[in-house]
Amino acid sequence: MSRKQILLNAFNMNSVGHINHGLWTHPRDRSTEFNTLEYWTELARLLERGLFDGLFIADIAGVYDVYRQSLDLTLREAIQLPVHDPLMLVSAMAGATRHLGFGVTASLSYEPPYLLARRLSTLDHLSRGRVGWNIVTGYLESAARALGLEHQVEHDRRYDQADEYLEVLYKLFEGSWEDGAVLEDRAGRRYADPARVHKVEHHGEFYRVEGYHLCSPSPQRTPLLFQAGTSERGRRFAGRHAEGVFITGQHPQAVAEQVRQVRAEAVAAGRPADAVKLFMGLTVIVAPSEAEARDKHAEYLRYASPEAGLAHLSSSIGIDLAAYGLDEPIRYQKTNAIESVARTFTAGSGWTKRKLLEQHALGGRYPTLVGSPQQVADALANWIEQTDLDGFNLTRTVTPESYADFIDLVVPELQSRGLYKTAYAAGSLREKLFAAGPRLPASHPGAAWRDLSRSAERALRA
Amino acid sequence: MSRKQILLNAFNMNSVGHINHGLWTHPRDRSTEFNTLEYWTELARLLERGLFDGLFIADIAGVYDVYRQSLDLTLREAIQLPVHDPLMLVSAMAGATRHLGFGVTASLSYEPPYLLARRLSTLDHLSRGRVGWNIVTGYLESAARALGLEHQVEHDRRYDQADEYLEVLYKLFEGSWEDGAVLEDRAGRRYADPARVHKVEHHGEFYRVEGYHLCSPSPQRTPLLFQAGTSERGRRFAGRHAEGVFITGQHPQAVAEQVRQVRAEAVAAGRPADAVKLFMGLTVIVAPSEAEARDKHAEYLRYASPEAGLAHLSSSIGIDLAAYGLDEPIRYQKTNAIESVARTFTAGSGWTKRKLLEQHALGGRYPTLVGSPQQVADALANWIEQTDLDGFNLTRTVTPESYADFIDLVVPELQSRGLYKTAYAAGSLREKLFAAGPRLPASHPGAAWRDLSRSAERALRA
Repeated sequence: MSRKQILLNAFNMNSVGHINHGLWTHPRDRSTEFNTLEYWTELARLLERGLFDGLFIADIAGVYDVYRQSLDLTLREAIQLPVHDPLMLVSAMAGATRHLGFGVTASLSYEPPYLLARRLSTLDHLSRGRVGWNIVTGYLESAARALGLEHQVEHDRRYDQADEYLEVLYKLFEGSWEDGAVLEDRAGRRYADPARVHKVEHHGEFYRVEGYHLCSPSPQRTPLLFQAGTSERGRRFAGRHAEGVFITGQHPQAVAEQVRQVRAEAVAAGRPADAVKLFMGLTVIVAPSEAEARDKHAEYLRYASPEAGLAHLSSSIGIDLAAYGLDEPIRYQKTNAIESVARTFTAGSGWTKRKLLEQHALGGRYPTLVGSPQQVADALANWIEQTDLDGFNLTRTVTPESYADFIDLVVPELQSRGLYKTAYAAGSLREKLFAAGPRLPASHPGAAWRDLSRSAERALRA
Repeated sequence: MSRKQILLNAFNMNSVGHINHGLWTHPRDRSTEFNTLEYWTELARLLERGLFDGLFIADIAGVYDVYRQSLDLTLREAIQLPVHDPLMLVSAMAGATRHLGFGVTASLSYEPPYLLARRLSTLDHLSRGRVGWNIVTGYLESAARALGLEHQVEHDRRYDQADEYLEVLYKLFEGSWEDGAVLEDRAGRRYADPARVHKVEHHGEFYRVEGYHLCSPSPQRTPLLFQAGTSERGRRFAGRHAEGVFITGQHPQAVAEQVRQVRAEAVAAGRPADAVKLFMGLTVIVAPSEAEARDKHAEYLRYASPEAGLAHLSSSIGIDLAAYGLDEPIRYQKTNAIESVARTFTAGSGWTKRKLLEQHALGGRYPTLVGSPQQVADALANWIEQTDLDGFNLTRTVTPESYADFIDLVVPELQSRGLYKTAYAAGSLREKLFAAGPRLPASHPGAAWRDLSRSAERALRA
């Protein structure tokens, strides 16, 4: 039988510290150059050399001020602050590459759908169909206050708002300009055919939009849709909308259960189980031999900041971990932060602060593989086999060294096992990932908005 | 005496039709490729070869539906529809050039200041200080409705809102991170110094922002500030904030008066009269000889659409010009559109529809120079001398041909007269234009927010 090929995204952020905190202090780490173009175009070229499917760029619109109710450690260790806009990076990297996909994070909580739709379509045009959107809602009180709100919207309610936001976007992406609307007919003086361009008239609970999409149809129309967050409500949202889902896991059994649940939600929404590609966050430290990999790991550990990792986690779960004693179980609290992460890293799952610090030895909370290329390839294959995952979001440690190591050492090993592509497929990001067309498949709810006149009566959220 | 050197921006838009409508139908015009990266990176390189100061990219967040209360002609002639996001172009062009500035338009009416500040700072970092922001407020009802508003804010009130928006941005750009806040001290594990990063606490009439700027200080901090719109209220705004002002004029005398008024407003706001560079929109058709230039003009005229120009103007002034007879004077009406344009092109200034159609022979409303390199250089020099203008925003006609013609023919002529630089100055866009530092000068009101603790009591709008 042909083996499932592993998908790979590089997981990154337009910031110094992202996941594995503290490693910016390593002499070979270049993350402090994140504010230069060359840093990003060189990274994009490196990833394309390694045939990575995508560069996934996380984002946050607030600051991490939960730990000690202070910004001190956040600034000292550059824990996702400064954090620059990820969308501004894409056109330069698209110009430096031909195949690499770009999964950009943009929160729908603070931007009108009409303008975000335009940004994403513009980038999908410029990259010739290589853009994915990681759909997030805000979860930081600090972001809400910076954006002029008293408080953020409550967790489950944010997903209701997101459902409607997506509906508006589908209308703009899929319904406003018909196929064939753009004629470019110079002799007949008809750039576009007015009969095939339609006004969106959306009057919903959260949004009111009356207008035409400002962009002509881009290669994918709707960019490839990514989502993270696997709370019950989050999974329901993912099952309906997402084509790529990122999960955070520690043990194959729990990850397999998350994968199963997301696929079940897709099926419940009328989509095939494999309409969603599942990626798990992972850190890899690889060297030609196991001994060298262990040495490298030990060297990296000297620069990492487990405490910075806990400060990051404090904001992710809305709980100040500085207030806990080392062996105190972390009490789960219902907060307005990331529900799925809060459930994963609290006492119900057996976590104390001591265990969290051990888990964050490398500054981040993702599982870490350390070994030879063969050992890493074995472990990756095992994860896929045991969990039904489709691939991984690889964090950076010392950058870009850790990506270069993976590409030089692990990629050939995976290729020799038939577990990784040896060339990019043609076409847009969606075509590359699903071996189908560039547009949303008919089973996706967004496809229902292709004919605005007929679909006006249908309720996406029926 | 040393002669004043002429400043030049290429005036463009992320669209097919911009100012000179209809010319997309010309066989050599490439504007239908506006949705590709190569179109923009090649243009940027061309302009840098011509030592242009900047590429100025207009924008609009709505559609032109005033003419015949319809979108038909707008779509057929691609009159600024489709119109893609201009900010998404910048990083690719910055990567393709070293000196060219980028004046990007972004409306403050529909975006929270916290996020626009981040976008602009991100681009100023990536371009190493080459970003200008053209400050606009929305003026289209169609945009307001697409953005979920019942109606747009009234004209003068929009400027009150803009004043406060700028105040928020100055606090973020200038006050949130002190000089020296970023240490990048690896050995001491201090990326930034918490004592030098400050929270903005803004509680105004229009905006409420409590937060830290998400970006570290960029080369210019506040991007170079451009503004158009020369209504009385607009001029007051420009005198206070703008470092570059775009004006639309037809006759040297009227332009000289506009220039005088803007400089007077700057002085009234406590700034030097030359703290504002004034640019006039202009169309140039040039060929090696006058006869060839006239032939080229005649050829272009065959493809232009004066009617599309009037449809564009109808939305600019909020008056449906289709309703007018040919010799009917255009009645000035107080609308919510662009006040200064409405005053310029209505009966008070002697305009009938017939005269407007003649004015828009090339599809746009800007003055058009046709001639040999020497004639064009004479005319440009005359404009500068008679009006105290600093430079021009050159529209495109057949693109990129019209820019290449100007660069190959007019630039050397201007250089030989000492009227144009022969090399770029070093540094950021602000340094290049003002031969001073990269930051706002001390006389600019934005500079007052550099020390947030001291400036808290000062009211910018005192």
